[in-house]
Amino acid sequence: MAQGTAPKTDYSDSNTKAHVLSLPLENSQADREPHSYERWLIAKLMRMAGSPAIRFQLWNGEVIEPEQGPARFTLHLKDHKALYSLVANPNLAFGDLYSAGRLEIDGDLPDLMESLYRSVHAARQKWPKWLDALWKNHNPRATGISEAKENIHHHYDLGNEFYQLWLDNAEMQYTCAYYEHPGNTLEQAQLAKLEHVCRKLRLRPGMTVVEAGCGWGGLARYMARNYGVKVHSYNISREQLAYAQAESERQGLDGLITYVEDDYRNITGQYDAFVSVGMLEHVGKENYRALSELIKRSLKPNGIALLHSIGRNRPMLMNAWIEKRIFPGAYPPSIGEFMEICEHGDFSVLDVENLRLHYAQTLSHWTERFEANAERVTEMYDEHFTRAWRLYLAGSIAAFRAGSLQLFQVVFTHGDNNQLPQSRQDLYAFPATPEGN
Amino acid sequence: MAQGTAPKTDYSDSNTKAHVLSLPLENSQADREPHSYERWLIAKLMRMAGSPAIRFQLWNGEVIEPEQGPARFTLHLKDHKALYSLVANPNLAFGDLYSAGRLEIDGDLPDLMESLYRSVHAARQKWPKWLDALWKNHNPRATGISEAKENIHHHYDLGNEFYQLWLDNAEMQYTCAYYEHPGNTLEQAQLAKLEHVCRKLRLRPGMTVVEAGCGWGGLARYMARNYGVKVHSYNISREQLAYAQAESERQGLDGLITYVEDDYRNITGQYDAFVSVGMLEHVGKENYRALSELIKRSLKPNGIALLHSIGRNRPMLMNAWIEKRIFPGAYPPSIGEFMEICEHGDFSVLDVENLRLHYAQTLSHWTERFEANAERVTEMYDEHFTRAWRLYLAGSIAAFRAGSLQLFQVVFTHGDNNQLPQSRQDLYAFPATPEGN
Repeated sequence: MAQGTAPKTDYSDSNTKAHVLSLPLENSQADREPHSYERWLIAKLMRMAGSPAIRFQLWNGEVIEPEQGPARFTLHLKDHKALYSLVANPNLAFGDLYSAGRLEIDGDLPDLMESLYRSVHAARQKWPKWLDALWKNHNPRATGISEAKENIHHHYDLGNEFYQLWLDNAEMQYTCAYYEHPGNTLEQAQLAKLEHVCRKLRLRPGMTVVEAGCGWGGLARYMARNYGVKVHSYNISREQLAYAQAESERQGLDGLITYVEDDYRNITGQYDAFVSVGMLEHVGKENYRALSELIKRSLKPNGIALLHSIGRNRPMLMNAWIEKRIFPGAYPPSIGEFMEICEHGDFSVLDVENLRLHYAQTLSHWTERFEANAERVTEMYDEHFTRAWRLYLAGSIAAFRAGSLQLFQVVFTHGDNNQLPQSRQDLYAFPATPEGN
Repeated sequence: MAQGTAPKTDYSDSNTKAHVLSLPLENSQADREPHSYERWLIAKLMRMAGSPAIRFQLWNGEVIEPEQGPARFTLHLKDHKALYSLVANPNLAFGDLYSAGRLEIDGDLPDLMESLYRSVHAARQKWPKWLDALWKNHNPRATGISEAKENIHHHYDLGNEFYQLWLDNAEMQYTCAYYEHPGNTLEQAQLAKLEHVCRKLRLRPGMTVVEAGCGWGGLARYMARNYGVKVHSYNISREQLAYAQAESERQGLDGLITYVEDDYRNITGQYDAFVSVGMLEHVGKENYRALSELIKRSLKPNGIALLHSIGRNRPMLMNAWIEKRIFPGAYPPSIGEFMEICEHGDFSVLDVENLRLHYAQTLSHWTERFEANAERVTEMYDEHFTRAWRLYLAGSIAAFRAGSLQLFQVVFTHGDNNQLPQSRQDLYAFPATPEGN
């Protein structure tokens, strides 16, 4: 159903200095010889990036070895203008040049990105201020009710068929899975994640749950099916909701689940549990207080809330390319900003768990399936799209491995609620991973 | 050894408007009749406190019933000046008047305090600004190296014999215990706490641990005895260290444990684990960044840190009486302030657990033993001291029950450490509570 609907993605580049994508792709052989100051520029660029083990191959075939140690990766620049884009705005240009095939990579893409993230993270402490200002990421775009609709449509309405090619076939989870054992399959780990979330919420039959941002509705179905709770799930992605509704009817769960096509800000009623898995990244810092107040009024006196979100160890803006091309409006909160949501509502934080490396593994599993279906993706969209998503997945694996992204599950309740679980033992009383799958 | 060393406690009141304790205790019968505006003042006071179910009995025997519902508690004011102290500075005066016997209570003391905390917490939202300013708690006193020494001496050097009267006889733990089952004894729960902390640190034989603030050295001994690790434990309470050292020698653990009489700020070396149980409350907000930097440099690349501390749901100053009479310099961080410590050091937060109600239970167990030894305490010190500690313990039970205090255990590591535990399953693989005891 999705075929041909994809390039809502804004590949034009009107907002940035680097007009990377409006350039015609040049045949590398036709390009001129590199100037000596271009070699100097590459050496300088690599030093600023903390001297990672990267070899450059220029448009004329010439090779520049890294200053320190042997190269582990080769980065081909296919035309000389690519170099200037990269120097002017590396955060944005790297992704755009790679997507356009003007930058090619020899070596494992996630490994290269991890190595780059680690070396840049250490090196940027020493950047002069002007460089930090030049290369900085910008504030994400707005996340008001109407903008949120566009932001979410941009990514999540790419077509269910596309996501079905590489997400798990158990519950179509596009969020971090939970690997109880390193050898678990993606399906096992996604079901274990759903189970882990339900246990943290201490669900009991007959309880009511409200879900903010429900994806393809998998958590709602899991909760209804396995815990006998009544769920109201909100989402503004029409494509996702259509799938969720059909699947809930097919499974005979539509008596327990109400999928609502509306913004989370319009949630009404009071529930025993408030849950949101993978939406906070899209909420935007300016809406954290409103979110906190929303949870406050949506939660019964002894209710429990769980927010599951990508996060940071300290505040940091989203990579420009990801925010521009992949996730408009995205901003993962730092752990401190996350806690401000809880503080604002006078909530009591009961439990924080960081599943960072679980997300790296989830993304690796997605990448395997994505690559197995890459030709199909290119047929559905185009080569540029496939390359952009390949880089996005690889860069995300790298960011979780390098520790520039975290995955926090935060459980909290009203400050005066004493109906608390005695300990977390019950989360681990028996395996969360289903047998089989 | 401690007998007679106690009243370093500053019972004079030179810093406050309310000269509560310098007044002679008057015989209630000798006091004058209450004025009508005094009755009005009590009604007003109770309304400002959110109309808790408290009856007042005045110095002449006259009774004032609560405006709403039946009374659950009676509060006797023994002289008319006590009323003015209470109105002028209730946070400080309540404790001072109670300690001095000028305020008496009928009913369960922790229940009364909890009921008061809950009703004041709700009511203070509506206080006029001038009242909020009049009744506010003040900043805690300084916590520089020399002041910290005095602050700690004030409380922890009251004498080991005193603490032995009511702390557990397993490891003399003066911090929150961990009740795996509600029926656990204090000894079981304190040993389970030590075990729980060791598991969170993922200790293995041969590892090195540094401990900031070690109390009577129980955690260090537990770690050395049960996990075969080498421990450096810092403390500035001489009384505690003398006990710790003797006990470590008695148990033949002095080859593994080095107790250091020094400020945590003077920790040197690098360790596999950094642990601090119940010290952060005394560190002071102004030292959080330095603490973060200290942990950063004290932790090996794959090391794990654990801070266990009383905390808050949002920033709030310590109750004036507790800070002045019981814990000089104390300030429990809010969860957000706690996370700032982690953010400042670019740490990755792995796990936060809130053991709030476990501390209420711990304090209840302490209170039982304290009351069983109250006569002995009065012999060692005086009636005023016994009453002050009775109120401090009861008020603490109440604060944890009412949710105005939390107990956070926070586990974190360097941001680029990938040698992480896969999940928290191993914390719950078998009971942390020892059999027997």
